[in-house]
Parts: sequence; structure tokens; C-alpha cells
Amino acid sequence: MSGSVYGTMFKIATWGESHGAGIGVVIDGCPAGLLLDEQVVQDFLNRRKPGQTMYSSPRKEDDKVSILSGVFEGRTTGTPISLVVFNENQRSGDYTQIASCYRPGHADYTFDQKYGFRDYRGGGRSSARETIGRVAAGAVASAILRELGIKVHAYTKSIGPITIDSQNADIANTSLSPLSMPDLEASKKAEEYLFDQMKDHNSVGGVIECIVTGMPAGIGEPVFDKLDASLAKAIMSIGAIKGIEIGDGFHAATVTGADNNDPFIYDTDLGLRKTSNHAGGILGGISDGADIILRAAVKPTPSIFRPQNTVNKDNENVEIRIQGRHDPIVVPRAVVVVESMVAITLVDQLFMGMTSQIGRIRDFYSR
Amino acid sequence: MSGSVYGTMFKIATWGESHGAGIGVVIDGCPAGLLLDEQVVQDFLNRRKPGQTMYSSPRKEDDKVSILSGVFEGRTTGTPISLVVFNENQRSGDYTQIASCYRPGHADYTFDQKYGFRDYRGGGRSSARETIGRVAAGAVASAILRELGIKVHAYTKSIGPITIDSQNADIANTSLSPLSMPDLEASKKAEEYLFDQMKDHNSVGGVIECIVTGMPAGIGEPVFDKLDASLAKAIMSIGAIKGIEIGDGFHAATVTGADNNDPFIYDTDLGLRKTSNHAGGILGGISDGADIILRAAVKPTPSIFRPQNTVNKDNENVEIRIQGRHDPIVVPRAVVVVESMVAITLVDQLFMGMTSQIGRIRDFYSR
Amino acid sequence: MSGSVYGTMFKIATWGESHGAGIGVVIDGCPAGLLLDEQVVQDFLNRRKPGQTMYSSPRKEDDKVSILSGVFEGRTTGTPISLVVFNENQRSGDYTQIASCYRPGHADYTFDQKYGFRDYRGGGRSSARETIGRVAAGAVASAILRELGIKVHAYTKSIGPITIDSQNADIANTSLSPLSMPDLEASKKAEEYLFDQMKDHNSVGGVIECIVTGMPAGIGEPVFDKLDASLAKAIMSIGAIKGIEIGDGFHAATVTGADNNDPFIYDTDLGLRKTSNHAGGILGGISDGADIILRAAVKPTPSIFRPQNTVNKDNENVEIRIQGRHDPIVVPRAVVVVESMVAITLVDQLFMGMTSQIGRIRDFYSR
Amino acid sequence: MSGSVYGTMFKIATWGESHGAGIGVVIDGCPAGLLLDEQVVQDFLNRRKPGQTMYSSPRKEDDKVSILSGVFEGRTTGTPISLVVFNENQRSGDYTQIASCYRPGHADYTFDQKYGFRDYRGGGRSSARETIGRVAAGAVASAILRELGIKVHAYTKSIGPITIDSQNADIANTSLSPLSMPDLEASKKAEEYLFDQMKDHNSVGGVIECIVTGMPAGIGEPVFDKLDASLAKAIMSIGAIKGIEIGDGFHAATVTGADNNDPFIYDTDLGLRKTSNHAGGILGGISDGADIILRAAVKPTPSIFRPQNTVNKDNENVEIRIQGRHDPIVVPRAVVVVESMVAITLVDQLFMGMTSQIGRIRDFYSR
Repeated sequence: MSGSVYGTMFKIATWGESHGAGIGVVIDGCPAGLLLDEQVVQDFLNRRKPGQTMYSSPRKEDDKVSILSGVFEGRTTGTPISLVVFNENQRSGDYTQIASCYRPGHADYTFDQKYGFRDYRGGGRSSARETIGRVAAGAVASAILRELGIKVHAYTKSIGPITIDSQNADIANTSLSPLSMPDLEASKKAEEYLFDQMKDHNSVGGVIECIVTGMPAGIGEPVFDKLDASLAKAIMSIGAIKGIEIGDGFHAATVTGADNNDPFIYDTDLGLRKTSNHAGGILGGISDGADIILRAAVKPTPSIFRPQNTVNKDNENVEIRIQGRHDPIVVPRAVVVVESMVAITLVDQLFMGMTSQIGRIRDFYSR
Repeated sequence: MSGSVYGTMFKIATWGESHGAGIGVVIDGCPAGLLLDEQVVQDFLNRRKPGQTMYSSPRKEDDKVSILSGVFEGRTTGTPISLVVFNENQRSGDYTQIASCYRPGHADYTFDQKYGFRDYRGGGRSSARETIGRVAAGAVASAILRELGIKVHAYTKSIGPITIDSQNADIANTSLSPLSMPDLEASKKAEEYLFDQMKDHNSVGGVIECIVTGMPAGIGEPVFDKLDASLAKAIMSIGAIKGIEIGDGFHAATVTGADNNDPFIYDTDLGLRKTSNHAGGILGGISDGADIILRAAVKPTPSIFRPQNTVNKDNENVEIRIQGRHDPIVVPRAVVVVESMVAITLVDQLFMGMTSQIGRIRDFYSR
Repeated sequence: MSGSVYGTMFKIATWGESHGAGIGVVIDGCPAGLLLDEQVVQDFLNRRKPGQTMYSSPRKEDDKVSILSGVFEGRTTGTPISLVVFNENQRSGDYTQIASCYRPGHADYTFDQKYGFRDYRGGGRSSARETIGRVAAGAVASAILRELGIKVHAYTKSIGPITIDSQNADIANTSLSPLSMPDLEASKKAEEYLFDQMKDHNSVGGVIECIVTGMPAGIGEPVFDKLDASLAKAIMSIGAIKGIEIGDGFHAATVTGADNNDPFIYDTDLGLRKTSNHAGGILGGISDGADIILRAAVKPTPSIFRPQNTVNKDNENVEIRIQGRHDPIVVPRAVVVVESMVAITLVDQLFMGMTSQIGRIRDFYSR
Repeated sequence: MSGSVYGTMFKIATWGESHGAGIGVVIDGCPAGLLLDEQVVQDFLNRRKPGQTMYSSPRKEDDKVSILSGVFEGRTTGTPISLVVFNENQRSGDYTQIASCYRPGHADYTFDQKYGFRDYRGGGRSSARETIGRVAAGAVASAILRELGIKVHAYTKSIGPITIDSQNADIANTSLSPLSMPDLEASKKAEEYLFDQMKDHNSVGGVIECIVTGMPAGIGEPVFDKLDASLAKAIMSIGAIKGIEIGDGFHAATVTGADNNDPFIYDTDLGLRKTSNHAGGILGGISDGADIILRAAVKPTPSIFRPQNTVNKDNENVEIRIQGRHDPIVVPRAVVVVESMVAITLVDQLFMGMTSQIGRIRDFYSR
């Protein structure tokens, strides 16, 4: 089937394998007139590049993007934007073992079950490199959001057992932490923890938090295409994500209505707003004008440098020892992927929301 | 926009408001030849009916379903199935207050922002009665799954701070608990907790867990339409759900790869399987043959019988006192809604998965 | 699969069989604030009712519509509009023959091939009554177009060999002709021709022409969702339609570029326009501001009161004699169906067209 | 909006402009295991290349295709197939005139109305080069159809006033005619006619006919996604197509039911079939097992080498003289485009049709 196309009005189609010719995305539905050049996209892609810290794979890749269509004289034309990153630096490694064995925690077995065989080189389509297409499209979506005064900011909330202290956290510090943790003290501790796990040939997961500011109230569709439901799909579709929550999320399930309800208040300076934001900016699937807040749980990298028990294609029980270059943690590099999927989803919902009232449609067309 | 249609190959369109003529669903894409009568659907709907325990709204409704199309001589014809529950027992209450005020935790304000006005009677389209359409469709989806040997079972995992003990839990007991908790001891404690909160004019949330057995390996699309991503959207689209996790979910973010990976093993009796199931039955977005496990966080009912601060349509700060019939907890009644959305999503993905291999397509058409 | 849902932003889901409980449609994506009551829909439905002239089936049906959701205090709420016409007057006829035989020109054989069996009563889902859902939705779409100053008008262009003379045709006369032919002289001749064929137990087809006025330039998507492509699907999806053309259509294939090109001209009174309209108001899949003109070929009714050779379910060659009430021509009753499908498609494309330019989106949201 | 993505289960996303970096397509939903290499696609693309006869643009382009993803060891992997043709030989011509003027019969004016500006070089996205993406995808779709024993064959039926005589036509001769006319005598006459029009600085249109053999009965969805409706959209979405008809098409509108109905017959050798095929292989939107027959009307090329009246962006009435390299007729080169769009649509409908019967789904999954 066709699971690599996403979106209704702002639609993206991603393609590419880890060790194929390249990775790319076609964006269909980007409005005309948006300023866009390769640097805008490259800046986003650079944030997910490997080899930037000791906590990511030493695989050095430029991941240089080219715009193949949809931009003319520095502006989008309204027709599909094709973005591509050609692969370099694929080691022609020895894939004998991985070709025949099912790595625990990986999609090897499930791909074989689904498709009958798989491109086993570097994980093929299930490689983390698949997210290049998402991030390239996310850069374009973010440029659209910027025109509407909306900002999306994600960061690492926790790594293994170490969580940031919101008192100490300053979003401006995110880029100063090699782990994208805005609480630099927690970041230090997390580095130590991570270093210990690496020495132990182990890997670590964590939680990414994302905040959207400037979102107008009234965006989202009230039943199946709720704003939170659409965000949940977008985030959960990122490899390694095992959970997603909005606002107080799972904590809300433990408290009472009196504690969880956000009272409304009005004053002439700030207008109508809520005095708290347990809901995370969404009520009944529709944005309420407060910041949108969500969190995603990232599992520890399944590739660990320890012997593991598994089965091969001949149904023999074997021991596998994974070689090669692997991130001991994907959380910091996934931060920009979360931002991208959120941005793409918000643009789609903002576009869909333009037809909610006949009066506004009439105004639009009677200009 | 069009947010009340869900699914690709098994598609449902729901409609209806709390105090309108009725609530219904049109199912497009149900295969021909399935045994179906009104009782099959009614059995599902009866599980979400209010007024069955002291912990749900005393509103007594039969919620009797009629099949208006798509069934002939006891079998589905392959054409759209239209199911309807006509509303009865709508009290023609006094809606003056709710018509002009924004209830905290409700969608009143966001509907007004989106649509310019709203049907304020009983919550209109954002009423919990909206789920009737989902559950009616879920009954049909479950009948399809049964043909394929797949079962979906959900239950209450926790209510407020009280969680079932998996040692004490027996799924067979779920229907014996008025709160749908399969650990009857925990259920008792939860009843006491809930009773206290009700006396205090307060409300309570909880967590629903859902387990799918018999799911074949190889189902799910590897990028945006991952099986877990699709389930996340389906579940998060249910009103009051604030979080969703698969397998170990948020807990996985705190452990190491060595602890989280599920080893594969093969023996001639059981075939290839995993010796643990931290992944919750899904790897790389595709089912791995193990049970699918997910949990959903339900927020406490926002309608509480205490005075609350809010704002009215004239931007005046006012105190609201909600009247009427409201569930102090929606978790037990939402159990069958979760089952339904899971069943609908699985059918859709099973149908999409039929075209994964050219050889199987050729076999299908060369019969 | 799911072939009874149509549209992207303005979405309709139709359901119902000729001899089931009723026929209906759910409209998802109608903007809030539109004035709507049952009379608006009934007026459209009355135009397709049988039994109004001697040239349509004597089956007398009121086809009275009910609005079950989506309207509050006389205005649409933005949530799904459920419309239903309950069936009356289904004769409990003898279906023995039709149940086992494949009527030539009908969908009996193909339904059996697709679904394994069929609801044979009155054609089931392939009955012309299926169009009730389309026309009900078309009434709502037309109400939206009216708000935008756009009008859709269809009429009978030809019946069998008799074609209207555009010199004699006056659109205002359409409703004066029992055959919906705006050239009343041609209408007379067509009546005679039709009467002769009826006496001969035969049936007749024809051509419907549709003109859209007031369509703004710039609507339509340039590649697969071209305005003309979308209209072609919409029209061809009506039962009995065998061809569709835009502007000069098939005639354009016989002339030269010099004759077929429409020159542009500008004058201060009328602005930019074309001095001819061979293109039928669409260039490159996008409306050019001229009237949109299209024609649809309707085949003769396959139900004729003559013995015909066919095959039954046991693969025996048999002679079938169709009984019952059947229109000797469906063209006049299909006129409003064509209008409806055109209106639905235009609304969908107008809604999709709102996101073509970033500047206009920014204006929309910075109100 | 997003009009460059097509299909439900077999989905294609095309991109690219005439004078940009290249043209391409992403295919999402191609099953795994299909033999595919670049030559299979190249063979299709070569059929639409310009510069092959004196009747097509002298622009010489290799249009060499590369497969960037989705194929591993000679077989499709089930993940997206990215195909690209990089542009060469774009003359850096003088676009001053075309940049500011609206060419009659072209999409210049409508693009400007829709998007506010346009990539005017060589027609940008509305260039005939846009069809490269369709044809590349068509090659893959045709490879799938071949596995199922289905063949699609299109040819030129008429050019201007010259039509093939079905008595003289032999499909095997299609490739012998420079105009893809299977009646070589008519082809000669058409060449003479075309030559005269070229001398006269004029252009010519024509009709393409397409025949599908080997199509199983029972494919197509009975309401909006009828097989003929889907084909109509697919064909009409090709630039320059102004009409589409199935079977007897517009002719059917002029005859009686007795003449238009196709009787069924059964004999033990050939099974159940029809003794005629006025319906063109489709009844009630579903294939009936007979050959599918359709025709498309192609308008004459709008680019003619004569002075024409038009308007420029400053609303001045001007005379335009189109320069450069233009086909005097696009019909022969469009033949493979029609085949491609038909093949893509058939694959999509065949895939959707796999879920029509619960019994066949159960068999599929109980293997």
C-alpha cells in the first residue's frame, strides 16, 4: 500500500533507503510566493546530521540538499517541490549477518513478513535516514508557519532517568547542550549517564517535549481529524517513538476534574485566555489559543554492541553481534524530526481550517 | 473541512448531535458476505449505554440501532451500511447559561472560535454521544476481525490513583466489575475512591488498556501509516483522551536497549516468536505477531458540580454552575469505544496490507 | 472498497438501495453559517422525482427529505449534515426472474462478479434511486455556490437524433419542456420521437449540456486534479453516462489550432476576457473566467419491454422479459443530477483553491 | 492545494518543470517482488520522446531515466520508487515576450490567476514534459498488469478529419506509422493533411483510442469510483484532452436501448460473455469481462507560428508571435500517455477490488 504519503492539503511523499542513491521528498500543496532557497532547508537538515557529537554515529555525511522543482526566482511557484539528498559515504560493509538475521528491536523480521524480502543494507527504508525527507519538508512547513506568526520549538526533556528541571530550563540554552537539553545542569548529568551506558555497550532512550507558540484558536477538526489526533499520528509515525501525550497527558488520568480543568478569564489587555494549561492548548480537538504542548517517548536505540539472541531466516537460533556505526541515543537528533512533523501537521490543519465558515469563504472570494 | 470521515479502505462517516434527531454512521468498504444483523451492533452499543451503573449519567437511553442499508438476507452486500440511533429522552432543559458561557475543559470556546457559533444543546457534536457512530462501526469491524481469528479486548487499567495488579487481573472478570476493571479487588477500591470524589462534586480519569490477540505478522505501512501511528490517531481522536502509548510506552524511554529489546526465538512447536514483548507487538510500524498492547489516558470528566470561573460570549468573567446529568467518570463507558477504534483501524490496515507482494496479488487474481 | 465517498474538502458519503429502508447522504465539510432548511433540498429532489410526466416511470414517490443533523436554528453548524429520504411505494413484486437472470445493459452480472451476490430488488445500489443522495448534496453545494455568485444550469441538448437549435433555445424555457429542452420546438419533436419508441417497447438516450456562470478565474489544480478532470469523473460516475466533453470537446479534435485557440482581449469595461470560448472556460485544468461548458452522453435506458437474450446464474441461455415500471428515457430526470455533481465538484475545488498563495493565506489568518 | 498526487492504493506523485532541474515521479504502493530495471521504464519513455519524426518538436532529448529508490537486486521492495529524468537541452531562450504575454490556448493566464505568478520558461509545470512522470509510472503499472495477464494498447484513431477504417486497421501496424495510426493508408493521408497544416503555420488535433484486453470481470466501485469514472478523470487530466467516451460513447446517446444493449450468451468453450460490446467493457461502473474501449479527444496544439491577438500582464492588447520548437500535433506522442494513465488507474482499481468479499479476504489471510 501507500504509506509514504502524508497530509491532505499540504501533502508530502518521501522516498529513499539508507544505502540507495539518495533520500528525498516531494511536497505537493505548498502555496506560491513563499521565499525559499536551499539554505532554509539545509539549516534544518544540519540539525539532524550524524557525527556532530560523540553521542551520535561517527558516520560523517554532508546531507546536502538540492531543490529540483517548484521554486522560481527565489519563490515557491505553488507546484510540487522536489527535494533530494544524495547518499554518500555508504560503506560497502559486510551485510552477510544482518542480511540473514533478525536484529532484536529492528524491523528486519516484520519487513520480511510484509514484503517477502528486504533491502538489508543499513536498514533500507526503516533506517533513521528516512527522516531526512520529513525534516526537509519540515523546513518548508516551518517557513509557512513563520509567515503566520507560529513557532514550533522542541527539546530533550529527559534522557534515561534524568529529566530537566523546568525551573532551570531555558529554551534559549537548547542549542548549547550536545543533547539538546535546555537545563544545562541536567544535560551534564545526562552526558555522564549516557557515557556510562556507552562504555557498557548499551543504549538509552528519552522524552522529547515540543511547544507551539502563536497558534490561533479554532484550528482542528472536531471528530477524527482532531488536532491532537493528527499530531499523535504524525509523532508516532517517527521510528522509535512509543508514546505521545498532550498537555498533562497520562498525569491527567490520575487527577480530578477540579484540578485538571483550565478556567477561562478575560481582561482587556490579554483578551480571553486560560489561567492554566493542563489541556496543552487543545480542547475538543481544536486549538484554544494557549501554547500547544506535547511529549514523545523515544525508545533506546535497538542496535547495541552486545551479543544478542535471535533467529535467522532459516529459523535457526543464533547469536548476533551488531557491528558498524550506531547512535547510542537518537533523542537529540530526533528533536528536529519532532519539530518537523508538528510543523507539517499544523500547516495541513491550518489550510483545512480555512473553510469552516461560509462568511469567511465569501469574503475570501469577493476580494 | 471534512473531519468526520475516517479510514482508507474501510471507511466510516459519522454524524449527529446530542440533541438532534439522532446519531449515525455510514460504513463504506465493508466486504460482501459478512453475517450481520442489528443484534450484533446492539450488543456493542449496549456496552456504552449510560444509566447502567451509579457511576454513569442517569440519562436512560435505549440507543436502539437500525440498519438502513447494505444488508440483504442477513449478509452485507458490499455497499454502504447506514446505521442510525434516533435520539430519545433529550430533556428540553434550560440552556441559557451553557449557550452563552464557555465551560472549562469543554469544547464550547473552541467551537465558537472555529465555526462562529455552535449547537450548544448537550454539547452538540462534541457530546460523548458522538461515539455511538464509532461503536456501531466498531461492531462491524469486530465481526470482520472475528472471521480472521483476531480479537480485541480492552479494560480499565487504572482509575485516578488506583491501578490493577496484573497478578490479580483476569480478563474474564472485566464484565463483573462495574468499572470494567479485571482486578476485582482494585475495582472495589476504585469504587470507593470514585464515590468519595462524587460526594465532593468532583470527577475522575483513568487509563484504558487494550490487547489484540491473533494479529498476523506483517501488517502496517512502514512510514507515515505505521500501525502504531494509525492506532495513535484513532485512539487520540476519542474525546477526553490525552495520551497513548504502545508496549512499554513512556517507560521504554527510561530503560536501556539491553532491557528493552525483545529477543527472537524459534522452536518447532510455537514457531518464530519473541521471548518478551516490550515493543507491544509492533516493530518499525508493522505487526510482529505478538499481542498488540496499547494504553490510553482518559482525563477526568470536565463537567463537575462545583462553581467554576469562566468567561461568557460578551467577554464577561462569570461563575458557572453546571447542571444536568453527567458521568463522574467516562473511563468504563469508553472501554468499548477504544475497542471499536482499534478494530476499525486494524481492519483498514489488514485491507491495505493485501497488496504488499506481487506474487500474492497474482495468486489472488489467478484463482 | 470504499467507492461511495466523494470529495476532498467538501465530502459526501451516499448510501441506500432502491428497495431498502431509504436513501441518504452525509455531507462532511459544509461550512458553518449557511442558511439551510429541508425546502432547499426538497426543491432539488422534486426535479428528479419520477411520475411527473408520461416519459418517466409511473412510480409515484414523494421522496420527502429529512435533515437529521448539522443544522441548528436554520443554519449549518459546520458538522456533518445527514439527509435521508425513506423509501415508500416499493412494490413487493415478483423478483424471481430478475434475481436469477442478468439483464442486458444492467449491472446485475458485474455486481455478482464483484460481490458474489446482490440485492436484486429494483437494482439495489445500482438503481437510479442512488442519485437521490447526489441531488440532496447538490442542493447544499448549490446553496454555497449562490453565496459566491456562481450558477450552474443544465438542460437536455438532444434526445436520440433530435438536437436543440441554439438559435431557438432559451434557457428560461427549460422548465416549460417536459423533456427539459430549452428549444420548445425541438422538445415537441423529441416528444414525438420518444412516443414512437415507447410504442415500440424501446428506449432512448440523449445529451445533457451544463453551463456554469460566474466562476472566478484561477480555480483548479494543474495536474491530476484539473478542474475538467474532476468534472469528468463526477459526471461519468452518474449511471448511464458514457461520455463527457468540455467546450468544443470531440469537435476540437477535428479543427486546427488557429480555429480552436481563444484570443484574449482587454477593455476597460469588461476587463480581460476571451473573444471566443472553444475551451469551455478551462485552460490547463484551471478556470479562465469564461462560462464553463460541458456535455454528457446518456445511453438509452437498458430496461426495455421486449424479450431479450441473456444468461442466468446457472449459465443457461434464457429469454428475459422485463416487467415493472421503467423510464423510457432518463435524460430529463438526469439533468438535475448533472447539475448536482457539477456543483459538488466546484465547491470542492473552490475550497481547495484557497491555499494557492501564501499572501492570501497570511491575510486570511491575520484578520 | 495538492493536485500532483494520484491514486488510492497505487499512488503516484509527479513533480518538475520544463526548464527546471528535471522531471520525476514517486510511486508509493508498488508491491514488492516485481522485476524492474531502468530499461523497462526507458522503453516507455522513448515512445513519448520528441524529435523522432518530422511531426514532433525538433528538441532532441534523451530523457534518460534513473531509479533512485525502491528497487533492490532487480526487484521492487514495496517501498517508494523514485524515478527521475534530468532535463538537458533547455535552450536559454529569450522569454521576454512569453513572460509577459498570455498565449491563447495555453495556461499562462490561468496560472497567473491562481498563483500570482508563474515559471514561464517553456510552460513550466504545464509543459507537455510534465507527462514524463506519468509515463514513467505507467511503465511500472504496465509491468504489474502484465503479471495479471492484462494488456493496454492505445493508438491514433483520427487526425483532424482523417479517421482510420477499422477494416484496414491492424494494431500490429501501430508502430509502423509515424503517427501511430494502425491503418497505414489513413496514416499516409493524415501525414499529407498534417504537412499542409504545418506549411500553413497551423496545428492539428485528433482522437486516441485505447483497448484493454484480459481485464477480469468484477473490477470497479459502483458509485463514485466507477471504473469508467476513474478512467475519465485519469484521461481528462492529461493536458490537451477535451473529451472522453467509453464504448459507443456519444453515439450511444443517439440510438435505442434495443440497439445499445449487449446480450449475454453462454457456451461451454468461451463461458459467459456478451455478443456485442457497445458498453465498452463496463456495466454499472464495473468491468464485465469484455475488452475495455475508450476514446480521448485531443485538441490541436495551441502553439502556432502565426501572429495572434492577446493581452499582456499590463492589460495591453498585443500581438504575439510564438517562437521556438513546438509539435504541430501532440496526438502520436500522447498515445503512450493515455496507455500510462489507463494502466495506473487499472492497477489502483484492481488493488482496491481485493476487499470486495469477506470469503476471499479470509482465504487470503488463512493461507
